[in-house]
Amino acid sequence: MKFTKMHGIGNDYVYMDCTKERLENPGEIARLVSDRHKGIGSDGLILIQSSEEADFEMAMYNADGSYGKMCGNGIRCVAKYVYDNGLTDQTEISVISGGAVKYLKLTVEDGKVQKVRVNMGEPILKPDEIPVVGEGDKLVAAPIVVDNQVYEMTCVSMGNPHAVVFMNGVDDLKIEEIGPKFERHERFPDRVNTEFVERMDHKNLKMRVWERGSGETMACGTGACATAVAAILNGYAEREVTVHLLGGDLEICWDETDNCVYMTGPAATAFTGEFDPEELRKSVQGR
Amino acid sequence: MKFTKMHGIGNDYVYMDCTKERLENPGEIARLVSDRHKGIGSDGLILIQSSEEADFEMAMYNADGSYGKMCGNGIRCVAKYVYDNGLTDQTEISVISGGAVKYLKLTVEDGKVQKVRVNMGEPILKPDEIPVVGEGDKLVAAPIVVDNQVYEMTCVSMGNPHAVVFMNGVDDLKIEEIGPKFERHERFPDRVNTEFVERMDHKNLKMRVWERGSGETMACGTGACATAVAAILNGYAEREVTVHLLGGDLEICWDETDNCVYMTGPAATAFTGEFDPEELRKSVQGR
Repeated sequence: MKFTKMHGIGNDYVYMDCTKERLENPGEIARLVSDRHKGIGSDGLILIQSSEEADFEMAMYNADGSYGKMCGNGIRCVAKYVYDNGLTDQTEISVISGGAVKYLKLTVEDGKVQKVRVNMGEPILKPDEIPVVGEGDKLVAAPIVVDNQVYEMTCVSMGNPHAVVFMNGVDDLKIEEIGPKFERHERFPDRVNTEFVERMDHKNLKMRVWERGSGETMACGTGACATAVAAILNGYAEREVTVHLLGGDLEICWDETDNCVYMTGPAATAFTGEFDPEELRKSVQGR
Repeated sequence: MKFTKMHGIGNDYVYMDCTKERLENPGEIARLVSDRHKGIGSDGLILIQSSEEADFEMAMYNADGSYGKMCGNGIRCVAKYVYDNGLTDQTEISVISGGAVKYLKLTVEDGKVQKVRVNMGEPILKPDEIPVVGEGDKLVAAPIVVDNQVYEMTCVSMGNPHAVVFMNGVDDLKIEEIGPKFERHERFPDRVNTEFVERMDHKNLKMRVWERGSGETMACGTGACATAVAAILNGYAEREVTVHLLGGDLEICWDETDNCVYMTGPAATAFTGEFDPEELRKSVQGR
């Protein structure tokens, strides 16, 4: 089975072309390929499939084999894959993922995709739709007590719930201690992703993220979008802002005209490979 | 550039056939391929080269690009690589690594190598040759005070220094707290690898290892050898013993007739691949 290993600012998946043939057991294959020492090593598996509702379908499986709905870093790599491998010659394409169609704009240099802009849709601010327990039509710099300390959070859903906390000294933050306490706080019925963000200037934000179910990650596309929206709501940033994550940078624009959030970032191919499912299973599980 | 990703009980390297052509810049390539999110992902790079002193040479580079002398898990994969890929049809071969020739015996099933036995040489027990500060011709169950607590250690060099500590409850040990305190203890002038070992029965030992410079790892071949030797010196084990590591099991035999330690363990191929050095560099380092 042939595959390509790609990443968007360090958020890495194994990509397979399933436009001609469907994969029988994607959940099991996802678990095998994701093992970082005995498999291929990735955050999961992304299958590129044909679709009737969009140009392509992105079927995403997490490292534990569960089906994933959408990944902002992954979808940019899908765009690079289909263009670089000649599955399309268009630079504006649509991709359906988890039932929702996303629109992408590709920047091509020397015949290869370097950057992709994704329309991530409108942010959701109403507390009960995020969901977060709170009064009013949105929570901006709202106080929350975590571990006996008062923080100010701004809550945004980009299809998944985010709490954005502005602070100084994010480099030294003990995120593995405070992250889980936000994630499991009683005010978030579906748990929450928490972004800890330092303001560099009006156009630059430094962000670290604690993702529910995953812990600290190098990059979270929806988290960067939520962070930009939160910064704008607080008057900390312009409508266009660069978010600096551990894995790299994302440019986020919250457009006034259509209320949509546009995320622009790189997509990279690391290598191509081939595996024998039986041999890979033996490698991961032992004899 | 073509490569094969292989591992010995989870200790994984990128393997390249350099018997016909030498790699120009192995240190730089090692750093690039080792990146687990943006590169290929491995503990380092192992080049298989021709040699005048042995059947093959294993040239090993760590993830930071530095030259490595020897790796017990890596050398088993070298044996699998050369046999499975038809570079030899012999099942007893010699491999030179870091200037020392090792002798290997291959177990073949269905035309492929499943297990490899490596003669790891004689253990060194004299304290100043290990090196460890201490009296007498060997240190067996010798007391050492670490972090205000008294431990009993048995010291063995297998070309690199090991302190073996027998204890109960290794599963719950906070190795990231105690490991560095052994590593940097004043009695080890070259620092030390520390094995924390639980006796299961006379033929089975459960081991966790803190490797100097690396922290806790899934598997350490020389550590498993040192552990078996220490268990035999303490009267805890037979001459043949299975060491259970996080990544898998190794069978160790300390032979009475030649005083050599023989390590037998599996070698596995995960997948094969190909990378373009320029594209990989861009993937790892950004544009």
